[in-house]
Amino acid sequence: MRILYPEVQSVLSEILQQHQFKREDAELCSRLFAETTRDGVYSHGLNRFPRFIRNIRNGYVKTGKEAVQVLAHHAHEVWDGQAGPGNLNAWKMMNRAMELAKKYAVGMVSLKNTNHWMRGGTYGWQAAEAGYAAICTTNTEPNMPPWGGSEPIIGNNPLVIAMPDSPAHFVLDMAMSQFSFGKMEDYHLQDKVLPYPGGYDQNGELTTAPGEILKTRQPLPVGYWKGSGLSIMLDLLVSVLSGGNATLDIGELPAEHAVSQLFIVFNLEIAGPNNHANSIMQKLKTEFLQSKPFSDTSRIYYPGERTLRTRSESLKKGLLVNEEVWKTILSLSTNNNNHQH
Amino acid sequence: MRILYPEVQSVLSEILQQHQFKREDAELCSRLFAETTRDGVYSHGLNRFPRFIRNIRNGYVKTGKEAVQVLAHHAHEVWDGQAGPGNLNAWKMMNRAMELAKKYAVGMVSLKNTNHWMRGGTYGWQAAEAGYAAICTTNTEPNMPPWGGSEPIIGNNPLVIAMPDSPAHFVLDMAMSQFSFGKMEDYHLQDKVLPYPGGYDQNGELTTAPGEILKTRQPLPVGYWKGSGLSIMLDLLVSVLSGGNATLDIGELPAEHAVSQLFIVFNLEIAGPNNHANSIMQKLKTEFLQSKPFSDTSRIYYPGERTLRTRSESLKKGLLVNEEVWKTILSLSTNNNNHQH
Repeated sequence: MRILYPEVQSVLSEILQQHQFKREDAELCSRLFAETTRDGVYSHGLNRFPRFIRNIRNGYVKTGKEAVQVLAHHAHEVWDGQAGPGNLNAWKMMNRAMELAKKYAVGMVSLKNTNHWMRGGTYGWQAAEAGYAAICTTNTEPNMPPWGGSEPIIGNNPLVIAMPDSPAHFVLDMAMSQFSFGKMEDYHLQDKVLPYPGGYDQNGELTTAPGEILKTRQPLPVGYWKGSGLSIMLDLLVSVLSGGNATLDIGELPAEHAVSQLFIVFNLEIAGPNNHANSIMQKLKTEFLQSKPFSDTSRIYYPGERTLRTRSESLKKGLLVNEEVWKTILSLSTNNNNHQH
Repeated sequence: MRILYPEVQSVLSEILQQHQFKREDAELCSRLFAETTRDGVYSHGLNRFPRFIRNIRNGYVKTGKEAVQVLAHHAHEVWDGQAGPGNLNAWKMMNRAMELAKKYAVGMVSLKNTNHWMRGGTYGWQAAEAGYAAICTTNTEPNMPPWGGSEPIIGNNPLVIAMPDSPAHFVLDMAMSQFSFGKMEDYHLQDKVLPYPGGYDQNGELTTAPGEILKTRQPLPVGYWKGSGLSIMLDLLVSVLSGGNATLDIGELPAEHAVSQLFIVFNLEIAGPNNHANSIMQKLKTEFLQSKPFSDTSRIYYPGERTLRTRSESLKKGLLVNEEVWKTILSLSTNNNNHQH
């Protein structure tokens, strides 16, 4: 079903306010969830909202807590997320890193003891919208075997890189597993095989059968040994710099929380208006349009490009919402008669 | 054949001095080449030295030129490599980024108009040895098709991440293609197939036959669409921040030179001695030793671990040098009677 954006956001905001969110926090938090679904990242938009509320109710996500600064040293600050809502913490930290970048040309915030930031790309778009380039990353619970290993002891630690451009920004948002569990569940429900091997079956062989991988919980790191190594290094960066939990520490907790994150922001205007940047990106966009694809019916996209198409369609026709998910969300409201569809 | 490290370095240094390197530059440059072979990265050690000398002779690498600062804005400086030797420029820039990190907690140098830095991992080890964490990256000539494309219009842009630890650092050095051309040539010469698909054949199908990929020049980005996106974003970061060439610009030059690089360094001591970091890394190393591998004969390695084993063997027994390569190197000396073996 499709529901118009303002309606979705207002329902989410109301539920959040019923869960002790201040009005302005509820507005921002609901906006970030709605925008994620608007942009087509369904797994971390509305589909994730019921679990978010569950984590508030069971105390993993602490309503009303927000990140506090624990250390400031010129261009780098360390903050403690105090187990507050992950997307609000991350949004605030990206803003702070931009302030530092404004002053120091490069600015960085390390954040410990925070919660899942939902869609990582959100903070890439946030930086790009404000005219900054950025790298940000988070660790996760252990959910992937390292290369050569059979046990999930590393995280799929998403990495986000953003570069502002006009009219469309470049934003990459990639987790370190070849496919997310959400994506593999989609394929499994539709009885489809993955287009490429996505993990291991019970014999330790690579497989394209999503059901097998969901059973073993052994997804494949992106690029085999390379994604495994990159996941390990990102985990070390976020945990060492913030003084927070590493993936193995998170694995000792009863559920995924108290994760560590890093926000690095680059000020692009230290040399004045950056015409060079615009010409580089224009050339890339032109070349991507002209370069020969393998298939005549396809073309080459740059990171973030397809997001814009989905966004525009969502805003016109309404957000694409799973009916069951929407019912569940409405049931979370203590005042749910207002929103029956 | 194996040749002891001091002998290798002195031969290289002498040749460099015959090519108008100042003595101390020749000592450092030869050391970096010899250390790369010492660590087992043969493709970018001695095997690359003849090409490096050729690039000096044809003027792409300018002996005696070194990087000069073009912009300084607190924690970020932009430098122009002036087409000097790539490994000397990169070494100097990493040193400068460490000085900035000492002062600002995070320090960054963007470098334009430089040459191939040879082994990227070198600068990761350099930072880690000095107690800093670091991220560095470079762009390259276009040598890989983006995801969905059939023409090589993006680079395989290596990414290096380093985290110091005792006794062994964590250092990741990965290019954005699943296999390097050097690795594929090795497999091809030995008539072996790649363990996983490494690129496309002439029908646009993924293949494990290295000979096919060497023909099409269509290597596979690591993790398909993900490595393709990451390559694009790294290229944008290095070129936009430095004001230097992007991969497409480099592709318009007669040969790969005037590339752009980025060195980001993190000061780990802003909160005093970092015991937290040590315990995180110790836990990871222990877990990797104990976790169950897929095969009883293998185990799980962390990034950089195997380098140390090769290093120690090389220092004991001598560097593993290809006989033909060594002959070629000796022939580059204008005084080559001294070094016949």
